[in-house]
Amino acid sequence: MAMKTPEQYEESLRNLNLKVYLQGELVENPVDHPVIRPSLNSVKKTYELAQMPEYQELMTATSHLTGEKVNRFCHLHQSTEDLVKKVKMQRLLGQKTAACFQRCVGMDAINAVDSVTFEMDQKLGTNYHDRFNSFLQRMQEEDWTVDGAMTDPKGDRSLSPSKQADPDLFLHVVQKRADGIIVSGAKAHQTGAINSHWILVMPTIAMGKEDADYAVSFAAPADAKGVFYIYGRQSCDTRKLEGGDIDVGNKEFGGHEALMVFDRVFIPWDDVFMCGEYEFSGSLVERFAGYHRQSYGGCKVGVGDVLIGAAALAVEYNGVEKASHIKDKLIEMIHLNETLYSCGIACSAEGKKTASGNYIIDLLLANVCKQNITRLPYEIARLAEDIAGGLMVTMPSEQDLRHPEIGKVVEKYFKGVANIPMESRMRILRLIENLTLGTAAVGYRTESMHGAGSPQAQRVMIARQGNLAAKKELAKVIAGIPQNAK
Amino acid sequence: MAMKTPEQYEESLRNLNLKVYLQGELVENPVDHPVIRPSLNSVKKTYELAQMPEYQELMTATSHLTGEKVNRFCHLHQSTEDLVKKVKMQRLLGQKTAACFQRCVGMDAINAVDSVTFEMDQKLGTNYHDRFNSFLQRMQEEDWTVDGAMTDPKGDRSLSPSKQADPDLFLHVVQKRADGIIVSGAKAHQTGAINSHWILVMPTIAMGKEDADYAVSFAAPADAKGVFYIYGRQSCDTRKLEGGDIDVGNKEFGGHEALMVFDRVFIPWDDVFMCGEYEFSGSLVERFAGYHRQSYGGCKVGVGDVLIGAAALAVEYNGVEKASHIKDKLIEMIHLNETLYSCGIACSAEGKKTASGNYIIDLLLANVCKQNITRLPYEIARLAEDIAGGLMVTMPSEQDLRHPEIGKVVEKYFKGVANIPMESRMRILRLIENLTLGTAAVGYRTESMHGAGSPQAQRVMIARQGNLAAKKELAKVIAGIPQNAK
Amino acid sequence: MAMKTPEQYEESLRNLNLKVYLQGELVENPVDHPVIRPSLNSVKKTYELAQMPEYQELMTATSHLTGEKVNRFCHLHQSTEDLVKKVKMQRLLGQKTAACFQRCVGMDAINAVDSVTFEMDQKLGTNYHDRFNSFLQRMQEEDWTVDGAMTDPKGDRSLSPSKQADPDLFLHVVQKRADGIIVSGAKAHQTGAINSHWILVMPTIAMGKEDADYAVSFAAPADAKGVFYIYGRQSCDTRKLEGGDIDVGNKEFGGHEALMVFDRVFIPWDDVFMCGEYEFSGSLVERFAGYHRQSYGGCKVGVGDVLIGAAALAVEYNGVEKASHIKDKLIEMIHLNETLYSCGIACSAEGKKTASGNYIIDLLLANVCKQNITRLPYEIARLAEDIAGGLMVTMPSEQDLRHPEIGKVVEKYFKGVANIPMESRMRILRLIENLTLGTAAVGYRTESMHGAGSPQAQRVMIARQGNLAAKKELAKVIAGIPQNAK
Amino acid sequence: MAMKTPEQYEESLRNLNLKVYLQGELVENPVDHPVIRPSLNSVKKTYELAQMPEYQELMTATSHLTGEKVNRFCHLHQSTEDLVKKVKMQRLLGQKTAACFQRCVGMDAINAVDSVTFEMDQKLGTNYHDRFNSFLQRMQEEDWTVDGAMTDPKGDRSLSPSKQADPDLFLHVVQKRADGIIVSGAKAHQTGAINSHWILVMPTIAMGKEDADYAVSFAAPADAKGVFYIYGRQSCDTRKLEGGDIDVGNKEFGGHEALMVFDRVFIPWDDVFMCGEYEFSGSLVERFAGYHRQSYGGCKVGVGDVLIGAAALAVEYNGVEKASHIKDKLIEMIHLNETLYSCGIACSAEGKKTASGNYIIDLLLANVCKQNITRLPYEIARLAEDIAGGLMVTMPSEQDLRHPEIGKVVEKYFKGVANIPMESRMRILRLIENLTLGTAAVGYRTESMHGAGSPQAQRVMIARQGNLAAKKELAKVIAGIPQNAK
Repeated sequence: MAMKTPEQYEESLRNLNLKVYLQGELVENPVDHPVIRPSLNSVKKTYELAQMPEYQELMTATSHLTGEKVNRFCHLHQSTEDLVKKVKMQRLLGQKTAACFQRCVGMDAINAVDSVTFEMDQKLGTNYHDRFNSFLQRMQEEDWTVDGAMTDPKGDRSLSPSKQADPDLFLHVVQKRADGIIVSGAKAHQTGAINSHWILVMPTIAMGKEDADYAVSFAAPADAKGVFYIYGRQSCDTRKLEGGDIDVGNKEFGGHEALMVFDRVFIPWDDVFMCGEYEFSGSLVERFAGYHRQSYGGCKVGVGDVLIGAAALAVEYNGVEKASHIKDKLIEMIHLNETLYSCGIACSAEGKKTASGNYIIDLLLANVCKQNITRLPYEIARLAEDIAGGLMVTMPSEQDLRHPEIGKVVEKYFKGVANIPMESRMRILRLIENLTLGTAAVGYRTESMHGAGSPQAQRVMIARQGNLAAKKELAKVIAGIPQNAK
Repeated sequence: MAMKTPEQYEESLRNLNLKVYLQGELVENPVDHPVIRPSLNSVKKTYELAQMPEYQELMTATSHLTGEKVNRFCHLHQSTEDLVKKVKMQRLLGQKTAACFQRCVGMDAINAVDSVTFEMDQKLGTNYHDRFNSFLQRMQEEDWTVDGAMTDPKGDRSLSPSKQADPDLFLHVVQKRADGIIVSGAKAHQTGAINSHWILVMPTIAMGKEDADYAVSFAAPADAKGVFYIYGRQSCDTRKLEGGDIDVGNKEFGGHEALMVFDRVFIPWDDVFMCGEYEFSGSLVERFAGYHRQSYGGCKVGVGDVLIGAAALAVEYNGVEKASHIKDKLIEMIHLNETLYSCGIACSAEGKKTASGNYIIDLLLANVCKQNITRLPYEIARLAEDIAGGLMVTMPSEQDLRHPEIGKVVEKYFKGVANIPMESRMRILRLIENLTLGTAAVGYRTESMHGAGSPQAQRVMIARQGNLAAKKELAKVIAGIPQNAK
Repeated sequence: MAMKTPEQYEESLRNLNLKVYLQGELVENPVDHPVIRPSLNSVKKTYELAQMPEYQELMTATSHLTGEKVNRFCHLHQSTEDLVKKVKMQRLLGQKTAACFQRCVGMDAINAVDSVTFEMDQKLGTNYHDRFNSFLQRMQEEDWTVDGAMTDPKGDRSLSPSKQADPDLFLHVVQKRADGIIVSGAKAHQTGAINSHWILVMPTIAMGKEDADYAVSFAAPADAKGVFYIYGRQSCDTRKLEGGDIDVGNKEFGGHEALMVFDRVFIPWDDVFMCGEYEFSGSLVERFAGYHRQSYGGCKVGVGDVLIGAAALAVEYNGVEKASHIKDKLIEMIHLNETLYSCGIACSAEGKKTASGNYIIDLLLANVCKQNITRLPYEIARLAEDIAGGLMVTMPSEQDLRHPEIGKVVEKYFKGVANIPMESRMRILRLIENLTLGTAAVGYRTESMHGAGSPQAQRVMIARQGNLAAKKELAKVIAGIPQNAK
Repeated sequence: MAMKTPEQYEESLRNLNLKVYLQGELVENPVDHPVIRPSLNSVKKTYELAQMPEYQELMTATSHLTGEKVNRFCHLHQSTEDLVKKVKMQRLLGQKTAACFQRCVGMDAINAVDSVTFEMDQKLGTNYHDRFNSFLQRMQEEDWTVDGAMTDPKGDRSLSPSKQADPDLFLHVVQKRADGIIVSGAKAHQTGAINSHWILVMPTIAMGKEDADYAVSFAAPADAKGVFYIYGRQSCDTRKLEGGDIDVGNKEFGGHEALMVFDRVFIPWDDVFMCGEYEFSGSLVERFAGYHRQSYGGCKVGVGDVLIGAAALAVEYNGVEKASHIKDKLIEMIHLNETLYSCGIACSAEGKKTASGNYIIDLLLANVCKQNITRLPYEIARLAEDIAGGLMVTMPSEQDLRHPEIGKVVEKYFKGVANIPMESRMRILRLIENLTLGTAAVGYRTESMHGAGSPQAQRVMIARQGNLAAKKELAKVIAGIPQNAK
């Protein structure tokens, strides 16, 4: 089957039978719900661009399983060139949506599960990798959006899975049967869950023997029996219910996260990729996290491009684009954004082949990339708020602008440079608000902080990968301290 | 008349006849409007604390005009001790409201107008200072909240007032009559406008002769004929309409800004404090801005205290309060917050007596204070987002928690440490969201940036006050370069 | 006896019989040794300015013991005004010397020892405070420079004093006799040791019972029997031996540190201020450190003034003083420098009276002050290096400039703006080098980092003084969490 | 001829007849001068490593001219892989020398001159590219170290070359003859000049018609008639004359800069690569600067590795390596260093083929790389100073340690952890001093700032390459502003 058109993608979602709660109500039709819809549009964009000739190189790839052209989001990276193209695809989509387009978690999950299942089979004689390949081939043929699901609710973070007051605070196997397993628990912060066809579940931390039941990886349909979702709310989410198209900031696109609950869900063995092999849970987490930390060096840079462009327009509309301090702040924003991009490119260009044949990023540099992502977008956002001006947070509403009388007053007093329509100024300020305080700030700020692991998680990895011992030897040589001496 | 009780304050506002537009509708009763109410509560707190014995020293002062006890917000600073107490009062109110309590603009305005009118009279033989003293005495006796109104819409910022396409983009005198003046224009970003009894208008920039009509200062009742307001919308403002008390983050308190329009408003001469004396407009702006830049070294520090406390609770509820990186980030937040406080205290302690007898802050240090305010709260907020965790932006709504069935699932999976009620965790995360992304982020972040002048405005003042020439002489002496040589 | 003139100070040092080693040799005459002399000149400046009418207010004070006028460096602070004047005196001296003038350690030591001995006597019935008052009176009458000596060598920092391999790694009492005590050990990093008349020794950390012998405080003449010094070397120290006056950067002034060794030194009981009262060692450290952390908010700001002035001259000599990025960097340097000053002022203005009657700084703010000192001077120095240009580190030597032939080439090619003598440019660049890389960089950078305690020491204090519990209560009220609930 | 051995390199330098002034004296034998020698050792290392099998891949390449194996420093980059290897070679050499190894300027110069001469010939019909190829072939065959010479003294930076008071302040053609040209002027800050065989001169800025005489590029032997050098002095340079091997910090390696003067030097036409084609001077500067900005993403990272290793040893010797704040600071140093490396890798991996066939880095990312180099090494150095402790700047001299009596005191009191020789601790602290304050700080700090262009130069390029117009279009689409509207 060929890659899905955007229309086919939307249609296929309508055929799902998802159980979604949002603000205390069961949603009848998630596809058309105004709060959810913009996030669907972002995923849909990954199908749309893949159909366009000018984006073929970035958006599509040749399957190593079938030789068919597939959407790159369904592809295992076959080279460092593939790793670099992944980052460029993500920057492109960030530029086109100014939001989280959600499909990366699945791509990062399949790339991590591939090499780990291969290594498990090599060492333990299991046959997870074949099962996974079957799943992957279906995914590529059906052009699925797959939700990579890793993060458990975790409860008391000072306790391991089996020590929690409630065993469900980490997802786990509650029963093993001849035909499959039954699992319970939940995955939190699930990006794009409502817009996905399938779920690819992975464990969330390195585990010990006593946590073996929690070392479980499998695939399941997004509407499997026993699965349901509670939609996470975002800053300014209900502006999407107001009917206008200015105050939302970004009318068309958005992202979302949800709690995904597994209430005794049955998984046939064919879709199980880890079940009790706790000693491999650490590798799986490390690799998925590594790929996902690379991803942010693409997507957040694309969103940053839009924010920089918006800030540049805002200053133009204010008539201050020639002030040297304004120009300097725009340069700084570009500098910081391209620093992030450099990190995304570098960990890709320095990637290596895994035992299973796909390519993995340089883990040290991918963690350095993400660590910068937890800082620089905040400074970019701060600079945007600086040069946009305070009007961004004191402007009247779109309803005031549309008001028959008061609208004229709004027009009159919020006019900037004479030849720019006041509405353009309002639109661009609302977009900056969206990215720095509103729905998109959730993605551009807080998720830059915590997505793919919180800052401290990267520091632990940097310490582990930084090879301090070798650096100490270099220093000893220069300082004239004998190598075998202290 | 004695200082107003909080109840009398609320009652006095009900007696006003304000014309306020909000989301396209004329508000019938601003006092009880759920979007506006929290901001009123913040101002009300300035009346409440002034009645409490334990806060007498900070909240009240002795009028230099009447010798009566007055609310400090109505007081002219009589010493550097008064300046220091002002900052401490503001920190206290920031701690009690976690929001902008709005009444500072009036206090800062009266202190600036006092010395400038005195100096105008000295030089020009006018009698503005007597008029101003009459106004001030009424203000103290009635315990008014006065809105200091400075910022004009400004239109194209590359053009001066008289060069704008629309003359109303800066407020100006349209007619001088025997009994008074008629003014038109608007003041933007007016903090607390809807909760004020009177308005004290000042010009917004240093001006030249051709802009003399724009050099105008006066007082007017908030419900004067021809005055109306368009309420500015804030991130997450409509959560206040949802009826719950968790998702709003801060149920009781808030702040607001509004556009204040003057449509041919008549001002009797007794209430006019500048009218055409353009050469004094720069001083008035500089002093008001200076006092207001000091203010931020108090109020934002108080809000920062709440954010630090909330972050500390969040990590406790997550069970990670003993992690060394968590402790270190809390220390950093305190360090940054106290750096801001140090700047607020220092510019106060180094204050000087003006010609009129009241005290003014050290202008260099007040600008340094505000410049830090445009940076450090952003880093404090970033650290709060770091240690709070990603749940803050992916949590379900309060309606989900209250749902008869799904509520149990929310309880189960968003539980942190076992002995902490899940609702406490939700409340504290929503408070952090409120301060970093929601309604209070408008005050804690964007207004920290732009309130009392944007960052570049402080840099201009720092350049002017920094005395680089003296520093060059110091360097020449040390370097052995003759003083009269280059 | 009146305050010493600078000449009398120099003469009095000549009368000492100090034993000083420098680069492997016993120094015959420290007062005239070219490496040491500039540091003596800095201390001498504290005597010179105290004689000048225009600096009376800052440089002198009235003794609370005798009512006589004394040099402020010998004074116990009697008010917050005194604390503020201390900081201003230090800024003044930093401006006049562009170096460490060394005399602060004694002033900070006497102020700390005063209140702690008082409290010891109150609690334990000892009579240390009287002894100390006698010492202080002699110090004031003789106008001594006293070296406050706290930091022990410490050996393995993971071990307490009594657990070290060598007991002398912390200074301690080796014998108690009827007439006094005998002490051994050393104090490291002793600022200004060679330019002092007396030493005031204090313990270096909070101690437990097993370390009682290490809890010792006393005064001793700088040339007491058994005391000797090893001079610490500084970056570029030997340029002072080259004979020129350009390449040294700062011809006249400098600072120094030395190792001060006590080899079985006898101290009569009258000069002993603590001997075994280990439970007071922590307070003494905390207070001395607190006063000394305040000090840096004065002295380093003064040095910063010179560096900013030098950078401003350098850009003028390069012909780029009108470039907007240059102006902006100078503003940033001033901003950072005044932020430090604000911290110095604030912890002083917020000082409190101690039980013994002298005044102590606000400890939280003093630690915040020093924490900023460990950061901002580095950024000021970086900005100075930026705008000065690379020539600072690639310029020929003064000998090349003085060379009969090659000197003309140097003149020709290192000329900047035509009407500025090339030598002026060379001088100013060498001064910037001195402050960022040379002898003064030791004081402006590394000692800003470690003097008065390393950064982590301040963080520990900030954690202790930051009152996180109260902040949590504030957050609970706002979030609607019952106070007695978690 | 094969690549030179390190011994042959040294020998070949002895055969040069260089005229070098250093501290006011003409140096008889630069090769063995103790101040110069360490810098020669660094260059020599580039010959040594090229002989070692384990470094073949990084240190050597195959000439596109002859197919012979050549040292990579003489190579034109034939692929992005070559660009990446260049950066890795530079990091390796930085690790081995902890200093500037100087040979990069020549490599970056030949790569820039290659494509520009090709494009000049294409457009103007000149034959510069053939001449350049001849020179390049000789360079490769002789394995020369070539000094790329770009920076003119510049005089008053607000004036163009032809407007300077002295025409020689920019190097220029003073006479054109049938057989060649005669040039006068100087190049400042010439890295490694004294250790080079040949010089490759380039113009220093984009020029207009009136500056045509200044648009000149050529090659000349380092000891050509009329060429002489004045050696630049560095912080702590004379420690190399003291005879010890501890206080120098880095006994074996160093770097240098010198003023290179051309006093009517004759250049035959065969060695002239630009002469009056002012419209190409801008490209040549931009490309050389671009290549050289990439270089810093390798060499400074290697030096950073040594500094991080030294800091890690210092804390181990102090006994504090388990403190969490210490570990965290080491992680931060690694993070910052790898961020720089990521920028070096990214601009290489994103390189492009030029018209002449060699590869050029991505100019935007190369400028972003260098911009970070002007910041992050300063923070790495600050952190090193933090965790190393204050002893680094207060330690006695090596002579004290070697002193028969006092040496024991030094041993005793500067001992850290018991089982570490005190001398090891002293050595590692002196190495950190060398890198943060001493001779190597010139390279690691100030030259990171100004080498390959000062910070503002990169900002100008980032503005030019950042494509703000495209970003504005992206923002307009998202904000719903019609593209052809403002």
